Amino acid sequence: MALAAALRVPARVLLRAGGQLPGAALGRTEQADGGGDGARRFGSQRVLVEPDAGAGVAVMKLKNPPVNTLSLEFLTELVICLEKLESDRSFRGVVLTSGACPAGGCLMTLTCDYRVLADNPRYCIGLNETQLGIVAPFWFKDTLENVIGHRAAERALQLGLLFPPAEALQVGIVDQVVPEEQVQSTALSAIAQWMTTPDHARQLTKAMMRKATASRLITQRDADVQNFVSFISKDSIQKSLQLYLERLKEKKR
Amino acid sequence: MALAAALRVPARVLLRAGGQLPGAALGRTEQADGGGDGARRFGSQRVLVEPDAGAGVAVMKLKNPPVNTLSLEFLTELVICLEKLESDRSFRGVVLTSGACPAGGCLMTLTCDYRVLADNPRYCIGLNETQLGIVAPFWFKDTLENVIGHRAAERALQLGLLFPPAEALQVGIVDQVVPEEQVQSTALSAIAQWMTTPDHARQLTKAMMRKATASRLITQRDADVQNFVSFISKDSIQKSLQLYLERLKEKKR
Amino acid sequence: MALAAALRVPARVLLRAGGQLPGAALGRTEQADGGGDGARRFGSQRVLVEPDAGAGVAVMKLKNPPVNTLSLEFLTELVICLEKLESDRSFRGVVLTSGACPAGGCLMTLTCDYRVLADNPRYCIGLNETQLGIVAPFWFKDTLENVIGHRAAERALQLGLLFPPAEALQVGIVDQVVPEEQVQSTALSAIAQWMTTPDHARQLTKAMMRKATASRLITQRDADVQNFVSFISKDSIQKSLQLYLERLKEKKR
Repeated sequence: MALAAALRVPARVLLRAGGQLPGAALGRTEQADGGGDGARRFGSQRVLVEPDAGAGVAVMKLKNPPVNTLSLEFLTELVICLEKLESDRSFRGVVLTSGACPAGGCLMTLTCDYRVLADNPRYCIGLNETQLGIVAPFWFKDTLENVIGHRAAERALQLGLLFPPAEALQVGIVDQVVPEEQVQSTALSAIAQWMTTPDHARQLTKAMMRKATASRLITQRDADVQNFVSFISKDSIQKSLQLYLERLKEKKR
Repeated sequence: MALAAALRVPARVLLRAGGQLPGAALGRTEQADGGGDGARRFGSQRVLVEPDAGAGVAVMKLKNPPVNTLSLEFLTELVICLEKLESDRSFRGVVLTSGACPAGGCLMTLTCDYRVLADNPRYCIGLNETQLGIVAPFWFKDTLENVIGHRAAERALQLGLLFPPAEALQVGIVDQVVPEEQVQSTALSAIAQWMTTPDHARQLTKAMMRKATASRLITQRDADVQNFVSFISKDSIQKSLQLYLERLKEKKR
Repeated sequence: MALAAALRVPARVLLRAGGQLPGAALGRTEQADGGGDGARRFGSQRVLVEPDAGAGVAVMKLKNPPVNTLSLEFLTELVICLEKLESDRSFRGVVLTSGACPAGGCLMTLTCDYRVLADNPRYCIGLNETQLGIVAPFWFKDTLENVIGHRAAERALQLGLLFPPAEALQVGIVDQVVPEEQVQSTALSAIAQWMTTPDHARQLTKAMMRKATASRLITQRDADVQNFVSFISKDSIQKSLQLYLERLKEKKR
């Protein structure tokens, strides 16, 4: 899915999903060696993980320039890094930092437990699919509706709105807006609060809250993929995407 | 269904529903003849349509004095006019203006994409069925809940609240409150914003948002009609309605 | 289920549920004898009922010191008193006053029609199960979600939040926050407003609003009980509860 281009730097908080991701252990994270960070970095150029085993938290930086396009390779790296942390019991929380969050990037953000956005009007967040002439999948819709409610989700999705920070906070698509240099520290504070709850109780609660939405996606996944492929392959839709990309290029000039 | 009597003048924005209404073409709207309006008026005295084919928008004025009672004749005229516009590809949006919106009038408003209410404390909006001793049908309830959420809908429906402008805005049952003379222009501005999204993508998105509610109504329609008829025919309910009407008359004196 | 200990004094408004409670008549409430209260008190030391048959309202005071633990005996007394009022057609509303509302106490509050909380930062309200290392049952979750929405419910449940008055009002878990000495009179005013709607219409509306949630509980009740018993019997969960109780004791010292 194509993504818009402006620089955006939200940080999002993700806590251990308690087996929500496939459990394949991909090797242990290298442990702290006494350095200030508490552990060695790992990952790739596109997904850089800075683990702090002492605090039980890792910061995961998504950098797939120019716009963090969610390619298969990028997503695979992301999942491998998450699984590594997931299988390492010394980690209880992850902070994702990203430089773009329209469409798929926004969806990733919405699955997190807490969202912090840099207070810079150039940074926007939203599901802007209709602006591209395409339609957000039902599980994007369900996830957005869980966060901001039905009416706000309908308006946001019909108009393909990208919310600048103040509006994003007001509609509830992010939880906090802070100066750019405080985004990561704010996310780390938030995750520290979430880690005060016993893990097993919090994980069961989270699973209960998201069960209906997740089940619906799992059940209808194949149909959704087929539906999307046949939709996106239409000449008219391709033309619509083409127009959108051309408008983007013109904006940049 | 009986409606309350005060003068209320909200304007509501309705966009092409993309085949949501029965598709029978009832003849083309007369096209613009170079006049300022862009097209000739059509409709009846009760449903007056002022089309602006150039802008792709029509204003539909509901005038069934004294209180826009939703009689079968009135609703039939309304549907015919909508189908005319629906089948004419030069129109992408409709602004409904109405002088009363309790109960059924409010429901019609809630199905629109955007709601603008005149800032006059005499104009109220809500589903006041319980005040008449009757019960809003489940699809009124579902539609209201989609717009203002479960808790606000429960309170509004149990108490049969009619919200004056400031409260209507706060609870979210309308999107904007403006001075009376700006209601129509504000609605036209709103519809212009909604028309910036490609039609096919917006229509599919809207259908996705409203599918659950619409399906439930369609599936249970016959049962709901029977249920309503048997309820409304009860002596006790007729007595309750009688009392309400008498109180209304007393108020006017 | 263990409850936290601080003194809290919210009053909640409960209206006749229209046969929602088992209908067994347990004897008539003694009628007014001309005294100021309009009727004689009844109930036990733990559930004291002060009926005002003239107004059609009873005030029910829950006093099971030190923390209104919801024991089987206490809940049985509560249900008997409610059934007594329910079967007496001279009563149309009940105000429950309580001195504690975390967890089960909060759930009881959430089932009411209106919630008034004393403006004292020591009084908090919420479902704090995760803080104890346990999980709120799905019908607690459904009920909370109905009142404050999905996102706020997810955050509140994952973190086991107890909201102080200002936050409780903002998130919508209570409807009003007033000075402590006005809690009961405010609740009585609220119930007077709810009693302006014809009973039969209001009750049918309420049943419609809560049907999905109630049906889900009724259908899955046995499975939920078994699930809870097997969960709470685990060594790890018992240890977690033990830890919580010890922390509570330390706080008090």
